[in-house]
Amino acid sequence: MSVISFARGAPSLDIVDVDGLREAAERAFTEDPGGTTAYGTAIGYVPLREWIAARHDVEAERVIVTNGSMQADAFLFDLLVQPGDAVIVERPTYDRTLLGLRDRGAEIHAVELEPDGIDVDALERLLEGGLRPKLAHIIPNFQNPAGYTLSLAKRERLLALAREHEFTIFEDDPYVALRFRGETLPTMLSMAEGDGTVVYASSFSKTVCPGIRVGYLIGPADRIAQVRTLATGTYISPNMVAQAIVNQFCRSGALDRSIETVKAALGERVQTLATALEREIPEARFTPPDGGYFMWVELPEATDVAALFIAAAERGVAFVKGTEFLLDGGENTLRLAYSGVTPAQIEDGVARLADALRSVGVPA
Amino acid sequence: MSVISFARGAPSLDIVDVDGLREAAERAFTEDPGGTTAYGTAIGYVPLREWIAARHDVEAERVIVTNGSMQADAFLFDLLVQPGDAVIVERPTYDRTLLGLRDRGAEIHAVELEPDGIDVDALERLLEGGLRPKLAHIIPNFQNPAGYTLSLAKRERLLALAREHEFTIFEDDPYVALRFRGETLPTMLSMAEGDGTVVYASSFSKTVCPGIRVGYLIGPADRIAQVRTLATGTYISPNMVAQAIVNQFCRSGALDRSIETVKAALGERVQTLATALEREIPEARFTPPDGGYFMWVELPEATDVAALFIAAAERGVAFVKGTEFLLDGGENTLRLAYSGVTPAQIEDGVARLADALRSVGVPA
Repeated sequence: MSVISFARGAPSLDIVDVDGLREAAERAFTEDPGGTTAYGTAIGYVPLREWIAARHDVEAERVIVTNGSMQADAFLFDLLVQPGDAVIVERPTYDRTLLGLRDRGAEIHAVELEPDGIDVDALERLLEGGLRPKLAHIIPNFQNPAGYTLSLAKRERLLALAREHEFTIFEDDPYVALRFRGETLPTMLSMAEGDGTVVYASSFSKTVCPGIRVGYLIGPADRIAQVRTLATGTYISPNMVAQAIVNQFCRSGALDRSIETVKAALGERVQTLATALEREIPEARFTPPDGGYFMWVELPEATDVAALFIAAAERGVAFVKGTEFLLDGGENTLRLAYSGVTPAQIEDGVARLADALRSVGVPA
Repeated sequence: MSVISFARGAPSLDIVDVDGLREAAERAFTEDPGGTTAYGTAIGYVPLREWIAARHDVEAERVIVTNGSMQADAFLFDLLVQPGDAVIVERPTYDRTLLGLRDRGAEIHAVELEPDGIDVDALERLLEGGLRPKLAHIIPNFQNPAGYTLSLAKRERLLALAREHEFTIFEDDPYVALRFRGETLPTMLSMAEGDGTVVYASSFSKTVCPGIRVGYLIGPADRIAQVRTLATGTYISPNMVAQAIVNQFCRSGALDRSIETVKAALGERVQTLATALEREIPEARFTPPDGGYFMWVELPEATDVAALFIAAAERGVAFVKGTEFLLDGGENTLRLAYSGVTPAQIEDGVARLADALRSVGVPA
């Protein structure tokens, strides 16, 4: 019995354009052998930086291309977060964000995430109560782990609060291109019109492939210059070979084709997952996401998801417990990633999960 | 007039095997599309890790492959160096090492570098005087910036001192494969026979190309496991595409061919440089290196190399002032990198440098 993994937020190989990558590599070495093989500088491969700047309609000076967007997060945290600094995160949020902030001694304030995004009223009450956060970390689209998307109205409220209370919004947006339903909302970066309130991060991990490790930050030019200094001191320059490959992949049209492939697959997978869950585990509560990789599932309050995790592993199915994404609570929740599993695997995996749930007992 | 740069330690494009890289990329995507495009883990691309382990005759558990060896240095410093910790460096040494140690608040002790390596007697006196360093950073082969190589006898002395006084030797060895004259000496890593005294770093920047950003650390398995945890928290995993390309490049024989190409070119360049300097600037004192990228030049004591730097720039020739590699002194010294310049450029560049030197005046 092979393991079916709803655990890892990564694409299955069938939705990675390996041929397109091979051709992009061929062109990178042929068309710009010097730029592809030399050190370059810490801002990244210049043509890719320019492509990203044009796509976001910002000046190139506001962009730095890094070895994946988590490295970008690390630089930004190193720059902005000192021990004891207050930082706002969503509740739940990405486990590695929590870890990165904890490692830097941040005072983490988790604000409830609702299906239309962070509870801005609760955040406002915190701010009015005197909290002075350095930054708010927000995953606006198809949030990891919840799959929820921040509404336009809440984006506006959040920006207004950040301006009034002078904190930075760190808009962490790796999934934005993967919307398979509904209309794309404007980024807070674009809504802020360059006033310096927002630092934006995104990545090619979900649209090209994770192994390429190319991400980027967009922010005020002076902030980006500080990140550049940190990056130079850490690794001289990021991976030029990988960035030159991504540049070719983007400019040839392969990126847009790849995004269509990924979106079609994710849309089908989430539909299969929702239908299977409704049929096999009718107690499960969830909001099917409009894009991205993840669906958050709540089981009846007294369900022991830690026990379910073990029972599921015994049946060859893996997921991540909701508690991993929380500072406290959530013992009845779990995250299901549908990015790395085919519809047939999803059907099989949900059946196994249902069997595991019966074995640990479902509270009435 | 185009600028002739003796400043940057990087290869000229004519000694980079671009065709071999293109073919290696083609094979990486074809033969292991899954491993090349997926996240992998922070230890690096498994087949490359195994190749490196075999080449150094160590267990794979002792190797971690990183985004360039400077990133490896940064992880090691983060792990070992706390503010106030004493660290031994060579005098002169790589400017980015000094910066990395300063940024971490290390108490830096620079010990004179002689043509056969660090002055181990002076180091012993420091240790007997009560200094308790956490580590000694040593570039054993064709040192940057001096071009000097640590003798076998001094390697043995250094190991004995490290064992007796319980500090780690950080053997930073990116140039080892680029010996164009004489016999390769054993690494201190191999001489230590896995006793944990040595952490070793090297890189493919000088043998494949810098833009590929692949380096590695070898050390005690428990230390490497700690670095792995740091790496996971920083970037999840390093660049799998780049590491899969390097793996194919190494295993196909392209690496060994590339090393031969680079060594032949460097040997010719250093010969040209030495001859031109002797003819054009007879006051210059230097020891032609047996490998690597760099030659250290001392001018008569009262020479103002800072003024020479400006006069040289006016004549379209660049170098790095010796003071960049020192905590103090060295105002009459400079580093000439010959890796990025052809013999014809070297001839021209030395003539310009001699003219610049006459313009600022040579002390009698």
